Amino acid sequence: MMKLYFSPNACSLASHIALQEAGAAHEVVRIHFDRNEQRSPDYLAINPKGRVPALVTDRGVLSETPAILAYIAQTFPEADLAPLHDPFAFAQVQSFNAYICATLHVAHAHLRRPTRWADAPEAIAELKRKAPEVISASFAYVEHDLLAGPWVMGERYTICDPYLYAVGRWLEGDGIDPARVPKLMAHRAAMESRPAVQRALAAEAA
Amino acid sequence: MMKLYFSPNACSLASHIALQEAGAAHEVVRIHFDRNEQRSPDYLAINPKGRVPALVTDRGVLSETPAILAYIAQTFPEADLAPLHDPFAFAQVQSFNAYICATLHVAHAHLRRPTRWADAPEAIAELKRKAPEVISASFAYVEHDLLAGPWVMGERYTICDPYLYAVGRWLEGDGIDPARVPKLMAHRAAMESRPAVQRALAAEAA
Repeated sequence: MMKLYFSPNACSLASHIALQEAGAAHEVVRIHFDRNEQRSPDYLAINPKGRVPALVTDRGVLSETPAILAYIAQTFPEADLAPLHDPFAFAQVQSFNAYICATLHVAHAHLRRPTRWADAPEAIAELKRKAPEVISASFAYVEHDLLAGPWVMGERYTICDPYLYAVGRWLEGDGIDPARVPKLMAHRAAMESRPAVQRALAAEAA
Repeated sequence: MMKLYFSPNACSLASHIALQEAGAAHEVVRIHFDRNEQRSPDYLAINPKGRVPALVTDRGVLSETPAILAYIAQTFPEADLAPLHDPFAFAQVQSFNAYICATLHVAHAHLRRPTRWADAPEAIAELKRKAPEVISASFAYVEHDLLAGPWVMGERYTICDPYLYAVGRWLEGDGIDPARVPKLMAHRAAMESRPAVQRALAAEAA
């Protein structure tokens, strides 16, 4: 059985939802960031990056959300979570997920984890000050250019949707006005009506 | 015919090499960063992100290196650039590429493009000061944990290799001592012995 290491409110929720959508037999294990468990020797032996998600499979451990999401889609093709047999459409899915991973999530990390890139207190303060502007621009780009609606890729629900939902939950906490991203908020509501999403949220709250 | 927008010394070299390895009919178009062409209206109409690479296909434009690399591998399966029919092995490839995209490249960008995340001059200086330490840690992780050798995934050459080669060329300019990453330097030498790499480098220098 696969095992997903997660932290509530982290991007690991995307992989968790995808496992639920796929009907994959799995268990979830919470990593307590408030106890710094992600840096514990036990967890570093599983994922040397010291981050979530990590997905333990019978072949080994996978990290990085875009890779895990595509893995779930390919391993459970009957769940139809990605256009696996259309290289261009699959690349569009992957391009979206790469953007979330390398730009939007990175922008958010400057607010939450600025010490990754700066030590001086005034520089840390400056990263936090500017972060909402950078995050907002990234969400605006998603809203206007990437989110076709109702799902990210249009009529077809894909592995982009749990990823957008997971990072979109950071909006308010990151100081972004939800009224500026109405399509994103409609996407959130549509996601929350899905039983798989409700199951994942319940499991993370348990 | 596909068209790749590139800038010399940018990560677009990875996609360029992959096109050469695949024997894909293509042309390349240089975007002059020194003239800020990546922000020109003409280029923004192609890639609203204002970055390279962008790959124009007969179906539309793709951006984000991990997506483009997997697209090339899937579109030219006879070139055998990724383990397309093994979801776990493919996920390992994608996990590596996601790490390069979202962590190593992002670390490098703090040295070269710090104004993405800070406006205050002293904060920009602090990002540049710390960047070599962050970049070095990321290359060390690649060297010790990710690069199996001789290729990233071991005996099999994949789309991870052009990506690592492209970002690995930044090492010296980013202030990293090559002597600390001997496997990476051997990988660079192995890459530069490949005709496809030589053709891509020659085309970018033309």
